[in-house]
Amino acid sequence: MTRYDVLTFGENMIRLSTRDFERLEQAQTLDFKHGGAEANVAVALARVGLRSAWLSRLSDNALGHKIAGELATHGVDTSHVVWTRDGRIGVFFLEMGSAPRASSVLYDRKQSSMSEMSVADFPWDVLAHTRWLHLTGITAALSDSCRELVEVALRRAHEQGVQVSFDVNYRMRLWSPAVAREVLEPLCREADMLIVKQADAQVVFGIAHAQPAEMLRTLADQFARRVVVLTLGAQGALVLDKTDGVVVHAPAYPVPFIVDRVGAGDAFAAGFIAGYMEAGVTRGLQMGNAIAALKLTIRGDYALVTHAEVGALISGSSSNIQR
Amino acid sequence: MTRYDVLTFGENMIRLSTRDFERLEQAQTLDFKHGGAEANVAVALARVGLRSAWLSRLSDNALGHKIAGELATHGVDTSHVVWTRDGRIGVFFLEMGSAPRASSVLYDRKQSSMSEMSVADFPWDVLAHTRWLHLTGITAALSDSCRELVEVALRRAHEQGVQVSFDVNYRMRLWSPAVAREVLEPLCREADMLIVKQADAQVVFGIAHAQPAEMLRTLADQFARRVVVLTLGAQGALVLDKTDGVVVHAPAYPVPFIVDRVGAGDAFAAGFIAGYMEAGVTRGLQMGNAIAALKLTIRGDYALVTHAEVGALISGSSSNIQR
Amino acid sequence: MTRYDVLTFGENMIRLSTRDFERLEQAQTLDFKHGGAEANVAVALARVGLRSAWLSRLSDNALGHKIAGELATHGVDTSHVVWTRDGRIGVFFLEMGSAPRASSVLYDRKQSSMSEMSVADFPWDVLAHTRWLHLTGITAALSDSCRELVEVALRRAHEQGVQVSFDVNYRMRLWSPAVAREVLEPLCREADMLIVKQADAQVVFGIAHAQPAEMLRTLADQFARRVVVLTLGAQGALVLDKTDGVVVHAPAYPVPFIVDRVGAGDAFAAGFIAGYMEAGVTRGLQMGNAIAALKLTIRGDYALVTHAEVGALISGSSSNIQR
Amino acid sequence: MTRYDVLTFGENMIRLSTRDFERLEQAQTLDFKHGGAEANVAVALARVGLRSAWLSRLSDNALGHKIAGELATHGVDTSHVVWTRDGRIGVFFLEMGSAPRASSVLYDRKQSSMSEMSVADFPWDVLAHTRWLHLTGITAALSDSCRELVEVALRRAHEQGVQVSFDVNYRMRLWSPAVAREVLEPLCREADMLIVKQADAQVVFGIAHAQPAEMLRTLADQFARRVVVLTLGAQGALVLDKTDGVVVHAPAYPVPFIVDRVGAGDAFAAGFIAGYMEAGVTRGLQMGNAIAALKLTIRGDYALVTHAEVGALISGSSSNIQR
Amino acid sequence: MTRYDVLTFGENMIRLSTRDFERLEQAQTLDFKHGGAEANVAVALARVGLRSAWLSRLSDNALGHKIAGELATHGVDTSHVVWTRDGRIGVFFLEMGSAPRASSVLYDRKQSSMSEMSVADFPWDVLAHTRWLHLTGITAALSDSCRELVEVALRRAHEQGVQVSFDVNYRMRLWSPAVAREVLEPLCREADMLIVKQADAQVVFGIAHAQPAEMLRTLADQFARRVVVLTLGAQGALVLDKTDGVVVHAPAYPVPFIVDRVGAGDAFAAGFIAGYMEAGVTRGLQMGNAIAALKLTIRGDYALVTHAEVGALISGSSSNIQR
Amino acid sequence: MTRYDVLTFGENMIRLSTRDFERLEQAQTLDFKHGGAEANVAVALARVGLRSAWLSRLSDNALGHKIAGELATHGVDTSHVVWTRDGRIGVFFLEMGSAPRASSVLYDRKQSSMSEMSVADFPWDVLAHTRWLHLTGITAALSDSCRELVEVALRRAHEQGVQVSFDVNYRMRLWSPAVAREVLEPLCREADMLIVKQADAQVVFGIAHAQPAEMLRTLADQFARRVVVLTLGAQGALVLDKTDGVVVHAPAYPVPFIVDRVGAGDAFAAGFIAGYMEAGVTRGLQMGNAIAALKLTIRGDYALVTHAEVGALISGSSSNIQR
Repeated sequence: MTRYDVLTFGENMIRLSTRDFERLEQAQTLDFKHGGAEANVAVALARVGLRSAWLSRLSDNALGHKIAGELATHGVDTSHVVWTRDGRIGVFFLEMGSAPRASSVLYDRKQSSMSEMSVADFPWDVLAHTRWLHLTGITAALSDSCRELVEVALRRAHEQGVQVSFDVNYRMRLWSPAVAREVLEPLCREADMLIVKQADAQVVFGIAHAQPAEMLRTLADQFARRVVVLTLGAQGALVLDKTDGVVVHAPAYPVPFIVDRVGAGDAFAAGFIAGYMEAGVTRGLQMGNAIAALKLTIRGDYALVTHAEVGALISGSSSNIQR
Repeated sequence: MTRYDVLTFGENMIRLSTRDFERLEQAQTLDFKHGGAEANVAVALARVGLRSAWLSRLSDNALGHKIAGELATHGVDTSHVVWTRDGRIGVFFLEMGSAPRASSVLYDRKQSSMSEMSVADFPWDVLAHTRWLHLTGITAALSDSCRELVEVALRRAHEQGVQVSFDVNYRMRLWSPAVAREVLEPLCREADMLIVKQADAQVVFGIAHAQPAEMLRTLADQFARRVVVLTLGAQGALVLDKTDGVVVHAPAYPVPFIVDRVGAGDAFAAGFIAGYMEAGVTRGLQMGNAIAALKLTIRGDYALVTHAEVGALISGSSSNIQR
Repeated sequence: MTRYDVLTFGENMIRLSTRDFERLEQAQTLDFKHGGAEANVAVALARVGLRSAWLSRLSDNALGHKIAGELATHGVDTSHVVWTRDGRIGVFFLEMGSAPRASSVLYDRKQSSMSEMSVADFPWDVLAHTRWLHLTGITAALSDSCRELVEVALRRAHEQGVQVSFDVNYRMRLWSPAVAREVLEPLCREADMLIVKQADAQVVFGIAHAQPAEMLRTLADQFARRVVVLTLGAQGALVLDKTDGVVVHAPAYPVPFIVDRVGAGDAFAAGFIAGYMEAGVTRGLQMGNAIAALKLTIRGDYALVTHAEVGALISGSSSNIQR
Repeated sequence: MTRYDVLTFGENMIRLSTRDFERLEQAQTLDFKHGGAEANVAVALARVGLRSAWLSRLSDNALGHKIAGELATHGVDTSHVVWTRDGRIGVFFLEMGSAPRASSVLYDRKQSSMSEMSVADFPWDVLAHTRWLHLTGITAALSDSCRELVEVALRRAHEQGVQVSFDVNYRMRLWSPAVAREVLEPLCREADMLIVKQADAQVVFGIAHAQPAEMLRTLADQFARRVVVLTLGAQGALVLDKTDGVVVHAPAYPVPFIVDRVGAGDAFAAGFIAGYMEAGVTRGLQMGNAIAALKLTIRGDYALVTHAEVGALISGSSSNIQR
Repeated sequence: MTRYDVLTFGENMIRLSTRDFERLEQAQTLDFKHGGAEANVAVALARVGLRSAWLSRLSDNALGHKIAGELATHGVDTSHVVWTRDGRIGVFFLEMGSAPRASSVLYDRKQSSMSEMSVADFPWDVLAHTRWLHLTGITAALSDSCRELVEVALRRAHEQGVQVSFDVNYRMRLWSPAVAREVLEPLCREADMLIVKQADAQVVFGIAHAQPAEMLRTLADQFARRVVVLTLGAQGALVLDKTDGVVVHAPAYPVPFIVDRVGAGDAFAAGFIAGYMEAGVTRGLQMGNAIAALKLTIRGDYALVTHAEVGALISGSSSNIQR
Repeated sequence: MTRYDVLTFGENMIRLSTRDFERLEQAQTLDFKHGGAEANVAVALARVGLRSAWLSRLSDNALGHKIAGELATHGVDTSHVVWTRDGRIGVFFLEMGSAPRASSVLYDRKQSSMSEMSVADFPWDVLAHTRWLHLTGITAALSDSCRELVEVALRRAHEQGVQVSFDVNYRMRLWSPAVAREVLEPLCREADMLIVKQADAQVVFGIAHAQPAEMLRTLADQFARRVVVLTLGAQGALVLDKTDGVVVHAPAYPVPFIVDRVGAGDAFAAGFIAGYMEAGVTRGLQMGNAIAALKLTIRGDYALVTHAEVGALISGSSSNIQR
């Protein structure tokens, strides 16, 4: 079995999005793509050269194979996917907004094959072949069995010496802040690396300060064994490395026109993990911000970047046009 | 309350179909429409001038309102729809084939709002306001509660003097022939008018003869109070009126290029019902065949015909181009 | 007959717009929509929950029914439309520009059914069923008979105690400033509420000051019984309520990318009217600015907003994405 | 001034057609092309190598220049077009049908610039520079002034020794058979070459026989100085050359799938004229049928054929694919 | 190294085809796909379950990786592709015709990376890992070095006991019949299996008979060690197996509407090889005809069939729609 | 022969660009246009009323005629194009980026018909019919024969009293800075007008100053007989007229959203030349900046502007929408 730099697991859904900023009620055609937070991370990692694997429980039909086939094309190992004949692939309808009109997601993901995955289904031996495990709060929100899966995975990873990153990724259309907090707090505590959005820190954990650095310190007091990242959207991100207690901030790259917002947070997470694994938190912020900025210019959930353009953006050598 | 010519009820799903005969695996965009056998019948009836009403249980979200809104635009009364906050709207992916490659439907309709409708939810007083009730085997296949709904509706209709048509519409991806037979036989027996495809007569009821007219007589021996229609696809349709025992056949109108096959059977059913209500079985066959042929040239499930073009096709006065 | 919150009447045209900022000379396909200032107002009013009715004279053909059908879908009462077999539906070609290249409208609207409507055609009894009548300068520019229609409608509305708003909406491709001024001055004087763009105030009425508030006071000296609104585009809008003489300004919501500019003025007017009817001029400015900003992100003439998103924008609780 | 093989004049309209066989009521985009019987003939003639000129009265706006520009690209001389600032370019909406559903044209062409052309506007000196003049019944139907234009053109052509072909091209949505007959009979009588569809011969001139050859002889008894062509759609065409009285029939080339029907009659007319000018009526039928068949496979009104493929079709050397 | 059922090598080009039967001169967008005879065969083989490998020399740029990535998605092994930084990927423009208008290919393939491959570049050890080698006349036509490559590959395959099929695939836009004949005759002689189109047999080898079976026998007298297949387009195919000398004919499956003609010959070849390897020439004809018929309904060069639908077509159990 | 204001020559390529900011790897359709620096200049000149001619060596196939035909439509004289049966039309794939992701050009232009043009092929007598000759560094980079062509053209132009402008237009994907410098320096020296981008001045000629005006003076010390223009992208442009030594700067017009960046530099060059010919360098800057800004809002390489909108932008009278 290949040895992975990063393993992740979670749900991937069919993504049906409107074109040209149409409202759902106007649309007569929809873009037919797919995505999910953990798969998005796996793709971005593979694109910048890491060996990533994504694991899920997928329905053995045209939709399931479309998902697995495309992930493989982007360089993600999907050989551990558990195939099933019973379930369904979740669907989300994405109405693409343009500020000040919000994009809006209509989830139709209940009873998906992944949400019905249990600890018994999971191919646990794969954990022995990875250096890093990436988990998100979305998987924990899918069902009781998935919550248990995340908890067990975190524990077993640590037992086997695998580092664990955890991205809170709160979804108000999946669960309430109170329930989320109860489930997520132990996970955030035990993770080696915690990634959380400013809004989620406030809504889920009730942490509110005028200064993001204060929020970060409060988070670090409660959560994570090593690293806490607080993402600020267009203001970039802040990180605190518990090994030295230093807080580092890096502004986001300006993106004047948002081609597709969905997946930018996952792109940041992937970039941060990749950069951190390479050279620590400062490099993590650079790569996280760069991949997130590029993702905002790419249609679909996946950050279909090249390693070269990430480097050019960080080094300041990118241009308007290359010819 | 308005008085309806025909009331029908059933599920309406989001229909996501490939364009230009693409396979699902190739598609990057999908046509975003909706449809369902009973709604298809209601639309065709309204388009040729009958007062039709369609009843269902619909999720109170953008998809549910898209469905109800468009049905209303086509002239169908949707005021009896039961709205719910809990359920989901079923989805089907339609890969458009071209002979000899079959079109293929991938259903994702479990746990839909309609499938969870029960006898208690149904606004039964609407039955008092219609002359005719149209039912299909699809509704009976959705769930136990829907099967009961169909059975009760048929019984209550008869109690109130409402005529009932029943279209078998067997779907192998919903249930097995054996289960279908057990559920459908009593319904077919009690219906005033039975409509059944040749293939379904064979697969579900085990009726096979070289001659369609023989099949029809065998069906008539077992089923329906008044009229049995056997549809033969490109060979047209046969009808037996029990009031005189005569079998009438009418060939289908030639359709050299199929624009969209889905809904043609429902278009026939609507045309047959409308024609029968107007002037008996011969008129029924004329209108059924005409609307079905026109439907095959119209994109989407709905037979968006005009009364004038149906008349022109029947009278032989239609042309290639009107200018 | 229903009782309307707002009644309006005017022309609705087929709108053929280029896609992806193409020039007309490049275009091989055009978006096929429709719109017109008064219908735009009626749609926006209906979308935020008012009972609005739109009245016009429409050709009884596929284009006329497309217009009426879609307005009904958006919640506008079209039952008073006068149908005619003779006329034509006006058309406008819209070349979508991107700054600094202007969008450009090529009107082909002469001899339209609406432009040939006369006082004799108008179903005057509908005035008794509305609280408010909204008129625009465009209708007055269409033809002599339409100008008379506007004048009579304003007078009769007042006779029946109906409030009247008047939006100047000057169109240089319809008439000259001099002719417009002559026709519009009496209408502006008599209206209860006057809405006028800064540029129109200058071009048509010759009112020019460095300070918009001065322009507004000059306008208020001459025009309107109660309320004058001066709209400033990206700078928002100013209002003067004659009941207290106070001038209120509200800045526009930032809209970084204009999806479709056409109809934003009508969206403002609808929002202002709705807000004013609810809670006076300050609420009017809030709702006007909010609906106008959202309209700029929506394709087509119509402000297909939801009441919830208007509220979220005003309250500052809107986000980038809802999921 | 260039010397033309064929001069023709008439109206060219913006053609807005549905895609993928959509109905107008379903369409959200329309194909944006243009065409008109006489321009269609001029294009087909130019494509097979003749020097053709098309003359009209066009509005000096983006639509007018789009029309003239594209005709020039296809090789048609448009230097004699009369430009005007006042008028409008007519429009037609084309709902593309698929048998047995008819395609349908919704004309919006009244008060077009061309329809208001008068004998005084026409640059009559151009007649001295052409060998052949092609006229159609559509121009005669546009307005009184256009009818007069056709009559004068036919007379002056003969005075100057220019041959005249006349294509009846009856349009029921422009005028009644009775009016058409009165206007067209003298024109048909005086034309050197008459081209008429079987249906038009019956509807307009009341000529009905079971045998097309009989119809042709009846037509020849009344009309044309030299040649009469009766077109039979999918059955090809019949011609009678008065110089020898012989009737020749040529079957149409099979066209299994009609890509776009509009303009096929004009393509036939152009091919017949070109072939006749080259080598008489038999060659005329070959070229007429060949260009008409190719036109049916080409989107838009214009027969964008190449001389080589017309030749290959006639010689039987055409294939499925050339590579 | 995996063991392959079939190995093939050749050029794959970017395929830029018109949509909706547009002519190249009309087109403003082109479909962006790729294909090439040998890759087409490899894809079809993989789709019906064989282990196929495709080998080529590809430019290391976005186009080269698009080609290799998609082939891998369809199950073809591309691990032996030779990557180069110098060359270019050939391009072909495909104007999609509709009978009687021919589709037309405009090749722009000179100096492609593959055409510059030499015997020295080829990873010859791969031959030891395959049971079968498939070659075509197109590769032999690309360049002198490619001709030599084909000759050497055929010889070395036989030395290693690998069976060789050869598909003539004459392309008049690449070379003349005389040159082709000189190069191809020795290859056809030595191949174990020869596949040739009726038209190519006549044009290249000068073999003409009224009866295809006679042509086949003449071919068999000169060429191939074991099996000769003569393909007849819509008339199906004939095969002669030299082990028994019997000629078998199988008619083609009817395909009323051709979605995309390109690649149908390669689909037949793949089906024939697969069927022959499984159960001899009769099975070969069945599978060849079935995959070719399905390919005609699939957009693009590749026969994206499923094993199940091939089986259903052969067994006569396929339907219009599966649901 | 017509007398031209400006003659230019160079290569025109097929331009295949992604839509909606897709990456090449995602794209299934491409926009099918064409362009090239010199043709872009010729089009912009013709659009603002100058008589421009473009000369090239073009393949006599559908692509070559598409290019020549469209240039003629835009008013460019293409009568001196040299047609050839042998060569190919170069192609470039354009991946449209959105900041911070760069647009990227993948050239496939080797062995193009134009690149193989030699001094012997060139119709030199055309030089006698033009006032001005425009050359670019791209042509010099195509091949040795093209380099010679540019050198000879510059010399002969001066011999015949024709003014010469030279736009450096460095392309790193065509040649190295060192080779470019060697070839371009003599050309820049002899040109009457030199136009160079800030980045090119630095990369090719090694001229770097903090202040653009310094760079400009350094350039003017070495190059050009009369006028040197240094373009600064979004910062506008600087010009130095050697007749008075004055440096003039003009800021660029703000363009909030870039519809299509390619060709903006050529649009500037055309505007500058046109303005300079009309009224000197200040007018040149105005027109250059205006046409470049408008080009950024127009899809495709060509600046399809109107003279009126250029004037409106310069005079400050342009608006958001004209109606």
